Amino acid sequence: MAIILGDHQYGKAENRVVRIYRDAKRHEIRDLNVSTALRGPFDPAYLSGDQTNVLPTDTQKNTAFAFAKSKGVESIEDFGLDLARHFVHDVAPVEGARIEVEEYAWERAVVDGVEHDHTWLRKGQEIRTAAVTVDATGEHVIGGFKNLVLLKSTGSEFAGFLSDEYTTLQETHDRVMATSLVAQWRFTSVEVDWEKIYAGIKQIMVREFATLQSLALQQTLWHMGRSVLEAYPFVAEVRLKAPNKHHFAVDLSPFELENPGEVFIAADRPYGLIEATVLRDDAPDAGDAWRISAGLA
Amino acid sequence: MAIILGDHQYGKAENRVVRIYRDAKRHEIRDLNVSTALRGPFDPAYLSGDQTNVLPTDTQKNTAFAFAKSKGVESIEDFGLDLARHFVHDVAPVEGARIEVEEYAWERAVVDGVEHDHTWLRKGQEIRTAAVTVDATGEHVIGGFKNLVLLKSTGSEFAGFLSDEYTTLQETHDRVMATSLVAQWRFTSVEVDWEKIYAGIKQIMVREFATLQSLALQQTLWHMGRSVLEAYPFVAEVRLKAPNKHHFAVDLSPFELENPGEVFIAADRPYGLIEATVLRDDAPDAGDAWRISAGLA
Amino acid sequence: MAIILGDHQYGKAENRVVRIYRDAKRHEIRDLNVSTALRGPFDPAYLSGDQTNVLPTDTQKNTAFAFAKSKGVESIEDFGLDLARHFVHDVAPVEGARIEVEEYAWERAVVDGVEHDHTWLRKGQEIRTAAVTVDATGEHVIGGFKNLVLLKSTGSEFAGFLSDEYTTLQETHDRVMATSLVAQWRFTSVEVDWEKIYAGIKQIMVREFATLQSLALQQTLWHMGRSVLEAYPFVAEVRLKAPNKHHFAVDLSPFELENPGEVFIAADRPYGLIEATVLRDDAPDAGDAWRISAGLA
Amino acid sequence: MAIILGDHQYGKAENRVVRIYRDAKRHEIRDLNVSTALRGPFDPAYLSGDQTNVLPTDTQKNTAFAFAKSKGVESIEDFGLDLARHFVHDVAPVEGARIEVEEYAWERAVVDGVEHDHTWLRKGQEIRTAAVTVDATGEHVIGGFKNLVLLKSTGSEFAGFLSDEYTTLQETHDRVMATSLVAQWRFTSVEVDWEKIYAGIKQIMVREFATLQSLALQQTLWHMGRSVLEAYPFVAEVRLKAPNKHHFAVDLSPFELENPGEVFIAADRPYGLIEATVLRDDAPDAGDAWRISAGLA
Repeated sequence: MAIILGDHQYGKAENRVVRIYRDAKRHEIRDLNVSTALRGPFDPAYLSGDQTNVLPTDTQKNTAFAFAKSKGVESIEDFGLDLARHFVHDVAPVEGARIEVEEYAWERAVVDGVEHDHTWLRKGQEIRTAAVTVDATGEHVIGGFKNLVLLKSTGSEFAGFLSDEYTTLQETHDRVMATSLVAQWRFTSVEVDWEKIYAGIKQIMVREFATLQSLALQQTLWHMGRSVLEAYPFVAEVRLKAPNKHHFAVDLSPFELENPGEVFIAADRPYGLIEATVLRDDAPDAGDAWRISAGLA
Repeated sequence: MAIILGDHQYGKAENRVVRIYRDAKRHEIRDLNVSTALRGPFDPAYLSGDQTNVLPTDTQKNTAFAFAKSKGVESIEDFGLDLARHFVHDVAPVEGARIEVEEYAWERAVVDGVEHDHTWLRKGQEIRTAAVTVDATGEHVIGGFKNLVLLKSTGSEFAGFLSDEYTTLQETHDRVMATSLVAQWRFTSVEVDWEKIYAGIKQIMVREFATLQSLALQQTLWHMGRSVLEAYPFVAEVRLKAPNKHHFAVDLSPFELENPGEVFIAADRPYGLIEATVLRDDAPDAGDAWRISAGLA
Repeated sequence: MAIILGDHQYGKAENRVVRIYRDAKRHEIRDLNVSTALRGPFDPAYLSGDQTNVLPTDTQKNTAFAFAKSKGVESIEDFGLDLARHFVHDVAPVEGARIEVEEYAWERAVVDGVEHDHTWLRKGQEIRTAAVTVDATGEHVIGGFKNLVLLKSTGSEFAGFLSDEYTTLQETHDRVMATSLVAQWRFTSVEVDWEKIYAGIKQIMVREFATLQSLALQQTLWHMGRSVLEAYPFVAEVRLKAPNKHHFAVDLSPFELENPGEVFIAADRPYGLIEATVLRDDAPDAGDAWRISAGLA
Repeated sequence: MAIILGDHQYGKAENRVVRIYRDAKRHEIRDLNVSTALRGPFDPAYLSGDQTNVLPTDTQKNTAFAFAKSKGVESIEDFGLDLARHFVHDVAPVEGARIEVEEYAWERAVVDGVEHDHTWLRKGQEIRTAAVTVDATGEHVIGGFKNLVLLKSTGSEFAGFLSDEYTTLQETHDRVMATSLVAQWRFTSVEVDWEKIYAGIKQIMVREFATLQSLALQQTLWHMGRSVLEAYPFVAEVRLKAPNKHHFAVDLSPFELENPGEVFIAADRPYGLIEATVLRDDAPDAGDAWRISAGLA
């Protein structure tokens, strides 16, 4: 009955890499938060403090910034692949690498009706994410986003549910439904037009949220995931995490006012939390694709 | 030499009021965070615990939600005026009221190229603010926004500065300039097309940020404030608070890479912080217009 | 090639349950954040919006508050077990339950040198956590904490590491080491003196952090985990996640000052991130013990 | 009717200065967040971009770190005075300086019952603050803290309040009262035993919160402020800001459970917000003592 070292990994989290393209008069910007983690025979560092195999996290940081120049940032999925392949293929002891990237979107300032060449406003909507894993079993890319806040003011119901002695909730056939959606989708290819597919997936999810007469947030998630899989054969699996951000209709009757779905209090906590995975029944093995490091993507 | 009670106020902060308009098929949404504070002869509550004059903060909350129905939310400036006037005019002991409102913008979901009737995405950009003060001296409205994150990738310099024995900074004639702007403007009228003027002021500030060849963030602020005052005679004063969100060019020379303004690290702390008030020399007295309560607007 | 529903769960997250014991003159307080999630045959809710099997998240909330009264909060591990067993055993369709609890510690106010009977200051140090899973395979309890911020001003080295073309870091044999530790430990019993063991485990980890001459944060984590397993035979596994909160010695030489490890800048981002699992080689199967829901514990 | 530049200031905010004393085997630690701001004839920087008088914020940062070595950190009030005096007296154009400091407390790790020489746990309770202003009118020091979270489970009432048509609140003679207190006190001397007085003021405030049978949070604040002024003749004024962190008793009657003040839900928003200034009627003029810069102290 020995005590042993189990899973381990280490890296540099939250490198705030900003890449400006200024070759033309019209500049471009990519604004990233890059976390790297390495996996491999680092047991001696734990067991005896021997760093022989340990590439410093400081070096990982340097590599992220150097690659922003030498490889560029065409898309965060490719940027993650570039970094992960480098660590696994070029740094001898490294057996696996996990790269998690957040991307913050900017939109061009509009001055006198014209988009400006080198000024932007942070868009502030959803944060795009990518999680890339490269190891002996292959290459895995997960795209995604988080903090996409959606709200519909009608077209949502909740009724016919199970009841027990702790149930006080009333049924409703018209409520506000709102969430701050976290979505991740696993690709089965690395030859993807990442920018185009990202926009397409977001569009599908927004469409399903808007158009489905929702009998539960669960049902909405299923429709979101299924529609993405139907549209993109190279996506094997979609994972969704959706807080039900409650908007409670305020009882205005003490003030002799009616409130037919017009005035709500947006509650902070507690919130419902609905999770689902939608996948193909022949989805290839995910390997370590879903093993997080910093957990930011 | 007595110990006395000085300034005091009390209220209910951060009422998360969401108002849906559903009279037509195309719904509308206004999403607010409302803080109220009352001023007046509440000394007995402090000195002896006598609540005779104290309208509960719970009642202030109820009023905010009831007014969202009975008065509606045409603009946050008017909503604040409605609430403040009510407290001062209708609740006997109250002498002054301060209403601070944050507004979160939403944009319509687009489905198959068409704006959806009742689904939105939280826009996520700047937070619009209003601070309304009503008391015996009159009515004061301050509009504003915060968290407007702006970045320009060129057109910014910093040189010719004062140097002492602790100075190590190098001059630069081409740097990234970024800020998360907080702006507030004081109106001298309450008869204003609030929605239109808000859009106009934001547009002017973005334009000045973008187009001025900036010799310092200070200079940019001055141009922003002055341009707003030039455009709108009923704005007396503009207050600006701008963190200089440093983007440091990364030294890639150890890796035999050049970095002509292409790769930056976005730093968290410390940050520069530049503040300025721009005003008319004949600006009317501000009274308590700038006396904050919750401090959220 | 069908599209199917994979793993799913749903619940109510972040119920802020505060339990006061006031049977004696000396009151007691337990301050919790409780998240519940249910697992089972809820597919119809996703696939067709049929809620027949769905116990509302609102009911889960009610249950958490009712149990705070009827079962009490002797320890968060037991509180989680009470809730999880109830959902699995008493609510017909439920097959598995996951309860995650955060606990915030309070310390008694001291007035004139005496502990006060009914007044506390929030302690503000680490947040204690418990994650309980009950399903057909049995009962799993994970204890833990997060946000335990530790710092040592000497007794930490980092040298002898791997170097490549992106390495610029210098070796050091005396540095500040600081982290905000996240630790979780899996019990193999539910008959545990939870309060006593929690205190014991925290003490051991603090001791190891303090006394080991650390050659790397990795080594410190290993010693922490191993020592806990050596002390408590009913703990099978310890998982540790430790951000390396960098404190960089400031170069004061331009100001003709020496800085022998006295003045540091505490950096925000990026940070190193070191993770490790330490376990017994005969640890029983963990089942779904590590499958998170809200992810707060 | 000209447009003019009004109040302005600029500086470097949130320098995370950590000072270790390692002269003896038993090290000491001071952990600060330092913000500096300068006031003076900086108009040309705004009006024309002329930086001749502008000491860079980067230089201010360097000075803060250099002073941590050369002056040391005996107390944050003195550290702030050292910095402010330097900027005003040693840097020609500077006319006024505002230094705001936050301090994070650490407590020594205890290993085998003995305090460790060089390892600490972040205490995590209140954040101590100091705000120092030096200008032509003199030197002003404000001490304080924030985030001191206090709760009493009985000894708090709220009744006899004003009622109008929006009032639905019930009177109570036994409720939980909790706050996250922000307190600031203005000294009339700079010859103060800062460490001792800080501890004394905190103790007084905790005592008043605990022992007063509170008829309203307002009354509690008055007692806190008055007691501090009675104890320390060199304190002229105390400012208090106290969110009423509501703990609502949960209605358990649907579950056939009584709840005599035992189970509460801790609400996030909205919250009451009570503010008061308590001062001597002969308090000397405050000058710019209360004019904030970063606003962190």
